[in-house]
Amino acid sequence: MSEQLLVGLVSISDRASGGVYQDAGLPALKDWLGKAVTSPAIRYEERLIPDEQPVIEATLKELVDRAGCHLVLTTGGTGPAKRDVTPEATLAVADKVMPGFGEQMRAVSLKYVPTAILSRQLAVVRKQALVINLPGQPKAIKETLDGVFAAVPYCIDLIGGPYIETDEALVKAFRPKSAIRPKT
Amino acid sequence: MSEQLLVGLVSISDRASGGVYQDAGLPALKDWLGKAVTSPAIRYEERLIPDEQPVIEATLKELVDRAGCHLVLTTGGTGPAKRDVTPEATLAVADKVMPGFGEQMRAVSLKYVPTAILSRQLAVVRKQALVINLPGQPKAIKETLDGVFAAVPYCIDLIGGPYIETDEALVKAFRPKSAIRPKT
Amino acid sequence: MSEQLLVGLVSISDRASGGVYQDAGLPALKDWLGKAVTSPAIRYEERLIPDEQPVIEATLKELVDRAGCHLVLTTGGTGPAKRDVTPEATLAVADKVMPGFGEQMRAVSLKYVPTAILSRQLAVVRKQALVINLPGQPKAIKETLDGVFAAVPYCIDLIGGPYIETDEALVKAFRPKSAIRPKT
Repeated sequence: MSEQLLVGLVSISDRASGGVYQDAGLPALKDWLGKAVTSPAIRYEERLIPDEQPVIEATLKELVDRAGCHLVLTTGGTGPAKRDVTPEATLAVADKVMPGFGEQMRAVSLKYVPTAILSRQLAVVRKQALVINLPGQPKAIKETLDGVFAAVPYCIDLIGGPYIETDEALVKAFRPKSAIRPKT
Repeated sequence: MSEQLLVGLVSISDRASGGVYQDAGLPALKDWLGKAVTSPAIRYEERLIPDEQPVIEATLKELVDRAGCHLVLTTGGTGPAKRDVTPEATLAVADKVMPGFGEQMRAVSLKYVPTAILSRQLAVVRKQALVINLPGQPKAIKETLDGVFAAVPYCIDLIGGPYIETDEALVKAFRPKSAIRPKT
Repeated sequence: MSEQLLVGLVSISDRASGGVYQDAGLPALKDWLGKAVTSPAIRYEERLIPDEQPVIEATLKELVDRAGCHLVLTTGGTGPAKRDVTPEATLAVADKVMPGFGEQMRAVSLKYVPTAILSRQLAVVRKQALVINLPGQPKAIKETLDGVFAAVPYCIDLIGGPYIETDEALVKAFRPKSAIRPKT
């Protein structure tokens, strides 16, 4: 009935994509979204790729421009190490930078660990999609999504995507009164 | 006696500038400044323009370079939507970026709404002027000015403008002791 | 026994470098590090230079690329005034920008003065080195190092430098459990 929500999930890790260990990022992202988003139905596009800037850029472009995703979540590659290039790749495909997401994700993580300031995660808008970098660890993925997702549905509204509703026990989507639709 | 304070006020909105509705941004900015700044006398330069990046850039340059403003406040155009380009226009005319203003304005607004992280507002220095992007809503304009204006007078000192004094009941301008002048 | 920690200290000030007054920045930095870092032994490379962007860039490159520093701390030149160009020079030699440091340093300083938002300080990674801009005043140097240094040892680990241990009474270095080595 209502439009599907197309979500791109990108796990960025040399070792997971190389089969050295099992990827834990994509399952953590799907688990969180599956619980928090109550409508519309979500279709996932999943990618597991190495920490190569051109590969990350091409993957983000493909998910937004061809697959038509409204939301893309990446996990991994946001630290200070040489191979961590997720933020650079994300910036390179941005139409607009959304500095508040990175600030707030670091502020949230700082409640848990002082090394949160080492995370360089950011968010951008590309065409009809919001792209958010998340940390690599499942625990940190949950903490940061808990901390910023309340603003995601209204952001998706503003860039032309489907109307997202959430399980308010987990995360309460916020919209100005004029933007709230009757419950489905 | 003392030098006038020249303040540029720029309301950026397709609909208000197109006459679709009445602009509420310029009155809100003048109301706040008129109460908070007790000296020197303020002369305003007001502009109401559409969300067009070249127009915004040209307006900011004109206000700083020709009109000689010490402070320019914009309102509107800082969200994630396609037509929101105020931050890009402001960055394009910047001599120096002042990241602390955007961070603090978002932190202040976060006390009211979780969607504060969607605001991309920033501040820059161009020549002798401090340029600050503010939100579009009068209520949010007041909240963010309340939250950052304490730092504005000393910033204007440092870039060579007139010595601003404020009504301390509304906002207490902060300066290091060495920079404080006797009350006028 | 263990590898030395090479720390570049750069005081950036027209007046101190011109002999108008005594530099207080380098002593404040050495005092703080000498107390907080308990191992490995530190070797300092000290520079006192004017607020000239090409000189700052050349100094940072020399300290990282030739002297082989693992950590470079600058003091001064981060405000909004015309001669304040330390952040621009630091960005110009960056491999990676570390936005969390600037955010957190301003957040820490905001507890003391509302003009903390005027500081444009940032941190970057260049090759094997973390470069952090600190304020000019000894008191503010101490406050901001107290506020962010807990994350520095793990950052240096991640970019390939020596394992830093701290006096936990002053600042407790944080690492994930998997990265902690037995006490030396």
